[in-house]
This record gives sequence, structure tokens and C-alpha cells, in this order.
Amino acid sequence: MPKEFFTVGALLYKDYDLLDVNGSLRMLGSLKANFNIITVTQTGEHVTSYTPQIANYINYNFENCPDFDILFIPGGVGTKDELKNSVFLDFIKQRVPKVKYVLTVCTGSGLLAKTGLLDGKKATTNKLVWNWMTSFGPNVEWVRKARWVVDGKFYTSSGVSAGMDMVLGFISDIYGKEEADKVALEAEYQWHDDPHWDPFADKLPGTVDMSTIPSS
Amino acid sequence: MPKEFFTVGALLYKDYDLLDVNGSLRMLGSLKANFNIITVTQTGEHVTSYTPQIANYINYNFENCPDFDILFIPGGVGTKDELKNSVFLDFIKQRVPKVKYVLTVCTGSGLLAKTGLLDGKKATTNKLVWNWMTSFGPNVEWVRKARWVVDGKFYTSSGVSAGMDMVLGFISDIYGKEEADKVALEAEYQWHDDPHWDPFADKLPGTVDMSTIPSS
Repeated sequence: MPKEFFTVGALLYKDYDLLDVNGSLRMLGSLKANFNIITVTQTGEHVTSYTPQIANYINYNFENCPDFDILFIPGGVGTKDELKNSVFLDFIKQRVPKVKYVLTVCTGSGLLAKTGLLDGKKATTNKLVWNWMTSFGPNVEWVRKARWVVDGKFYTSSGVSAGMDMVLGFISDIYGKEEADKVALEAEYQWHDDPHWDPFADKLPGTVDMSTIPSS
Repeated sequence: MPKEFFTVGALLYKDYDLLDVNGSLRMLGSLKANFNIITVTQTGEHVTSYTPQIANYINYNFENCPDFDILFIPGGVGTKDELKNSVFLDFIKQRVPKVKYVLTVCTGSGLLAKTGLLDGKKATTNKLVWNWMTSFGPNVEWVRKARWVVDGKFYTSSGVSAGMDMVLGFISDIYGKEEADKVALEAEYQWHDDPHWDPFADKLPGTVDMSTIPSS
């Protein structure tokens, strides 16, 4: 296995999706010798996820956050508020050019799209709120039927659980398929290793407008 | 949907598995009107999961933790230390008789088994460390090929990812299959809704001794 080492900066915000974050980071973090992971919120304080009362411990704020190699942006109901938060979007804009990879899960790609940095790139997002989410990136080449999409340094996934499959795909791209299979097996996880596998594109109409979902 | 409401007490400890906890709680917490979730550690301080530097925010310690209806015990590499921690095992012993349900994920069932409270009950656990883990419950009726097992108020699951399937099974038992299917669909999660589905029982030999895995 190559020894390439990455620091991952996970960007959290109120009403983030708990599985988006911790499912993906758990898979990355299985390679303990290869990934260091830090969490960051705007103020450095913990923010509650959309799961009642449950939160991650936070390491940094936007001011004191060190450089990292991978920017990780999760989705969640809170996306609707951060789409209007210029400080939050500016943090993404400042960091993207400095990192080697950007990984987004679920509606996290909508936040990235809103900055304009996905323009002309292929990407995917959550299937339940597809129409609403893709409206924030009119110049993005959205791929509806995809578990995850890779375009250059940008990895974007479909909703929630898709983040785990995408991260295993990322591990496979960097360290080889055998390593990704091992991570999945030891987590007793049935990895959907085909990025084109996406039954949810047909099952979910994509017509929900997330801005109508109450905050927690 | 019935209006039965539960408070869930999630019992965390150093080197817990991040997905065991947050995958399962995310599925439960999708029913926001039905579940309140609290986190507890021995001292009330946060403990780092086995994923480098990543932790959950903690609400209570063993002394000030209020009553709850469901005891949730995750697994993880840290199980090896808690098996020797009498204060931790005593907390489980004191709480189990007072709760309506006990849900364990992965090696969490080994901690429960060590207390003797699973004696004579059917249960399952992680497939990678099967032999080592089941040795702590010689009087438990261990079921090797199972995604999850229900015996009375005890729900036990196989390793890591199996927690999500078990929790969806729990939701199905309490609120109906339709509700569980909806939670899974909206999380774009392919729920393995058959508790007998378990390819990992054959793929993982169960011969790893977790006590030899270094702590983080």
C-alpha cells in the first residue's frame, strides 16, 4: 500500500447529517496510518446534527483551522441555512484551491455548487431533493443516476449512505481495490462498488424542497 | 404510526466504533417525534472513537445520567478494555433491569454477555472476532449466521454496519415495516431487512483476538 498520508478537514454545520459525516469518516479512518481527521465549524463550537441532540466534538473554527489535504463537506437539512451563509461559503471558496481532493456527501455538493467551483464539472447529489439542490448549480453537469461521481479532484456522492460507498471508491482509487474491499469486509459492510449502481434515482422523485423542512 | 416515545441512552467508551454509534442513532433519530437520544460516558467527558481524533459530544456521566427507556451499547476496539472495567460493567448491570429494550451493535453484545445478563438468551456479535468475543458469554446461545438477533427485550447485531439494519428492524417491530422502509429509502440505504442475511459469517473466520489490536 502506498504511504500517501492525508489530513482531512471535515466541515460541519448545524443540522448536518450524522451518517454523512461519521459513516464516511469511519471508512477513511480505518486506514489509521494514512489519515488524520479534524473537524471544523464556523465558531469552533459543536453544532447539533439533525439527529436529536447528537453532535460531533469539534477541533477548530474558521480562523484557527490549519491547512488540510482533503476538504470533506457533508449534507443534511442544515444545508438550507448554509446556502445563505456567506462566511461559510467563503471558507469553502478559500480552501478548495489549496486542497488535493474535495469529497462531498449528499447535499454537500449543493453547497460546493453554490460557490461556482463545480461549474462545468460532473457531480451528483441527494435524490430526494434533487430538483431543489441542483438549482444551486445551473452550470454543473449533474448526473442523476450515480452512487458517486468523480471529476478531477472532486468526489461527490448521492444521499447519506452513498457517502460510505464513495469513500470506499476513493480509498480504492488511492490505495487499490483490495484495500477498499478489506475496509468494507471488516466493517461487515456490503460495499456498492459500482458507482453506476443507484436504485434510488428511480425510487425517489427528487421533488422535495428541503427549504420547507423544519430545522431541529 | 403509534406515538410510543423513547429516550435512548447511548453508552460510549474510548475507542468505540464511530459507525456503530452514529449509523444506528441516525436511523433511530429519523423518527424525530419518537426518539430522544442522550450520550453518556463514565466521566461525562468525550472519549475518542477508534477513528483518529473523531468523537461524539457527551451529555452525561454515570452519576448524573437520568433514566432512559433504551440502553444502546456499541462495539469497537475499546471493548477489550471495558471488559475489565467493573465500573462500566456495573452501570450496564444497574440499567438493564430498568429499561424496556437493550440494543447492542458489534462487540457491544460481548460487554452485555460479560455481565451475565445474556445467559440463556439468543444473541450475535462481530464475525471477525467471533471466537474471542463469544468466550465472554459461555452460557449465551450465540447465533453465528445472523445480521441481528432478537430475544425478548434484547436486540444484538453483527459487526459495525449491521447496527443500521438491526435498528431498522427495531423500528419495523415497533412502528411497522412501512416506517422502517421509509427511513431507509430517505437515507438512500439498502436495508438488509432479513435478519438471516449474513454473508460475513462465511467470509470472516472469526479468529482475530481483539485484545491484540493496539488502542488508538
